[in-house]
Parts: sequence; C-alpha cells; structure tokens
Amino acid sequence: MADGRTETGRTKRVLVTGAEGTIGAAVREHLGDRYDLRPLTLTRQAYPSHVANITDLEAILPAFAGIDAVVHLAASPAVETPWEEILPNNLIGTYNVFEAARRAGVETVVFASSNHAIGMYELDGAPDIYELDDQRVYDHTVEVRPDSLYGVSKVYGEALGRYYMERHGLRVFCLRIGAVRAGDDPTAPEVLASSPSLLDLRTEEQRRKRMRAVWLSRRDCAQLIAHCLDADDVRWAVVYGISDNPRQFWDLSHAREVLGYAPEDGAPV
Amino acid sequence: MADGRTETGRTKRVLVTGAEGTIGAAVREHLGDRYDLRPLTLTRQAYPSHVANITDLEAILPAFAGIDAVVHLAASPAVETPWEEILPNNLIGTYNVFEAARRAGVETVVFASSNHAIGMYELDGAPDIYELDDQRVYDHTVEVRPDSLYGVSKVYGEALGRYYMERHGLRVFCLRIGAVRAGDDPTAPEVLASSPSLLDLRTEEQRRKRMRAVWLSRRDCAQLIAHCLDADDVRWAVVYGISDNPRQFWDLSHAREVLGYAPEDGAPV
Repeated sequence: MADGRTETGRTKRVLVTGAEGTIGAAVREHLGDRYDLRPLTLTRQAYPSHVANITDLEAILPAFAGIDAVVHLAASPAVETPWEEILPNNLIGTYNVFEAARRAGVETVVFASSNHAIGMYELDGAPDIYELDDQRVYDHTVEVRPDSLYGVSKVYGEALGRYYMERHGLRVFCLRIGAVRAGDDPTAPEVLASSPSLLDLRTEEQRRKRMRAVWLSRRDCAQLIAHCLDADDVRWAVVYGISDNPRQFWDLSHAREVLGYAPEDGAPV
Repeated sequence: MADGRTETGRTKRVLVTGAEGTIGAAVREHLGDRYDLRPLTLTRQAYPSHVANITDLEAILPAFAGIDAVVHLAASPAVETPWEEILPNNLIGTYNVFEAARRAGVETVVFASSNHAIGMYELDGAPDIYELDDQRVYDHTVEVRPDSLYGVSKVYGEALGRYYMERHGLRVFCLRIGAVRAGDDPTAPEVLASSPSLLDLRTEEQRRKRMRAVWLSRRDCAQLIAHCLDADDVRWAVVYGISDNPRQFWDLSHAREVLGYAPEDGAPV
C-alpha cells in the first residue's frame, strides 16, 4: 500500500462526509495520521469540520476545493429508513457529493455502499446461511437484489459512481460494508440487538451467528478505505467489507486481489 | 400469449402513465382493443384520462384503484436530461408509481427502462458496433454501465422494481427499450436526427446504421408490452426491446424465451 501521499509527496487531503458517524469516527481515529482529513458534518462537532447538509449542493461545494479524495459516508444508515429520508439523504445527497467532486476536480470517491444492495440473498438464506459449514458466497458480480429502499439507494449510488467514473474520469470505489459497530465487539448484547429487523432473527444465538459472519472491525474498515484511497492504479471497484470472520458469505477475494485488503481482525467462532 | 383477460375472464384494466408520449400513443393504438386502458397523463387530452403529475403520490393514487396492471412510461425521455428533471420525473416519479401500485394491490408493473442503463457498451463500441458483421451482443446479465444520469435513473428504476417484486410480491417487467419513433420509419431524416448527442455520430450514414440496429417499431413495442401484461406465470424479467433488425447488439433471445416476444418488423439493411 502507498503511504497516504500524492505523486508529488504531499499528504492527501481527504474530505469525509458523515465524519460524525460510526464509520466516520473509525476513519478519524485510524487514518488521522495518514491523511489530512477534512470532516464534513451535519452539525458542529468538538473537532474542526465543514458544517453543511449534503442535500444542499451549494452548501457543500466549498468543502471540496483543493481536495484529493472524498470518503462519502453521510446517509441515513438504517435498513429500515423510510422513503421520506432515503430521498434527501441517500438519493439527492449522494448525487450532490459526486457532482461536487466532479465540479471541484476531485479525483477519487470512496462510496459507502452496503451489503443491502444484495440483501435478498441473505434474507432468503437466513438463518442457515450463518452456519460455519454453509457454502454460499456472493461476490461483486451477482445480480443486485436490494432488500429495502435503503438497499435500492445503494444500488443507485453504485450506478451513479459508475457513471461518474466512466463519463467524468473519477476513480470510484463502492464498499458493500457489513456491520461496523461503535463498541467494536461482535458479541456485545447491544451489537447483537442491532440486527436489521427485516431479518426476523428471533434468538440471540441466531443474531450472534449473523454478527460472526458480517462484522467489520473499525480498524479493518479504516484499512479498507485507506487501500481505496491509495490504489492509484485502480479506477473502479465494488468490494465487500467484512473482517476475517470464521464464516463469510460475502466474497473478500476481490478486495484482497484488487486492493490488497488484508483484514487483521475476525469475529470469534 | 393469453388474451388480455384475467383468470376470471374479465378484460384486464391497465393504467398507462405517460399515455400522451410516443410509446403511450403506440399502446393506445395497438392495445386499446385488447385491454381496458386507463391513461394517466400530465395534461388534459382529447381522450379520457386521469390528469396528474407522477411526482405527486397522493394525486396519482386514485387512478390505481381496481387496476390489474400498470405500464409505467411517464418520465423525462431524453438521455441528455439534466439532474433537475431526472430527480422529480424519473427518480421520485418511479418510486411513486411502484408505491401506488403496492398500496392499491396492483399485481403487475411494466417499467419502461432503457438501453441507456448499459449505454457505455455502445458508446465504447460506436461506430463499429453498428456494422452488420460486428459480433458484440449484450444481454440482461451484463454489468450495468449507465451512460448518463438518465441511464442511472433506469438502473435505479430496475432496482426499485426488483425490490417491489421480492418484498411486496408484485410482478415486474423492465424493458430496456431501443428507439421508438412517432413516424415509425427508421430511415426518415427526422428519426435519424434524433440520435443521442452523446454518441457523437457525425454522418447521416452512421446515424442510419445505428437506427438499423436499435429501432423498435410501434407495433413491436406494443406486442412486447402485451406479452408482459399476459405472462401470468412470470414474476420478473429484464429484457431488451428492438425489432427484428438486421444488426442487433442487444440480446432478444431472453425476451423471446421468457415472454414469447416475436417481432414482426425490422429495419431495412
């Protein structure tokens, strides 16, 4: 992996939308020394940030000046999010971020997509799919099967990224992220309780086995994002983001091969 | 093909959004005897219609009562359409149509998608791809590569359809339609002049060869839609819509196999 610097040796300036969220906090904690991070947040924070709503293109544009890359995390993050919030926060907001990047000449966008873009495979397979001896694996080439309007918004964001990559020359990375949690413990009761309600996992044992498969530690998440930011020879990738878990039904081989992702953590068996 | 009737023998009631457009007119002309067509239009027409804007869910809902199927054609149809129109007419409007169908218990939605959902293949291949001896063919399984925000809106509409099919039980058909033109003559100067500007086809000969490959006659378009409306045993299909043209770089075999589509027309060599 390169070292967080541009071709001219300058530390890369990285705008992070949604920097106040769970993944944003992991990026600030683990990548703050590697990049010149520029948080963009919805409200004022204890650290310096550009305060603006991504639903307002004019308001976010100034934050893109002189930036090398954007990590786009700002969105309604829950799979149960209703249309009234998906529309502004996920559909309009994601367009605004790509468009602002284009207008400002930003080279790279890392888009926080989601496994819910293909969530129906899990929904069909649960709870058997969580067992250690289950063989099903879904990679980046499978047909999209969103399980929710949230999932639809991620398919849309990936298509938007593809368009901006092919027609406007941006480098775009779409990360179908598993489950990143603030406490960073995939066995904690509050983490298990956060399983999407649409999965209808009725026992804590089922929820534990799910988290064992879909967990992404905070530092592995940060590492994956860093690999995208430094993969200067890659123009497009859709990859899954989980740790080196004992059961994996989302493919990691593509992230390993294309980006050099090498997870350091894994959920316990 | 079934005969336009429900299981109980009643003529199917089919709501047609955008009934005043080019394809809407073809549907009214060719399928008016087969179905009980209910036009939904943006403005008052010479024929009876429910006048409402698809951007207003409450305003279109009454038109969905008692309907068996929706043919969703209303949208900004030009590949060059800017974001300011794509957002209301293609993103919000298509959500409203699927959601209204779900709320009203409508069983079937035929969604006018577009070849522009994968338009980058053509853009990369033009003008050689239009030659009769070129072998490239793109089917419904290829990776999406939208060539425009319009194309992105069609990828989104297909993902939305997939979600409503899998989570809410609708039957959904996505038609990646080629070029349907009012005059119905694929060699007419005004038809050739309608080629998308992004293709940058500089000679009339190039534009003629393109239309020779992408043309869909009005009656073939109507037939394809009728096959969707009557395919009671099919729950999901993404197919291309062109006539039996001498050069075809979008696959028709899936439409033939799954829907029984059998085009009667074809552009001249």
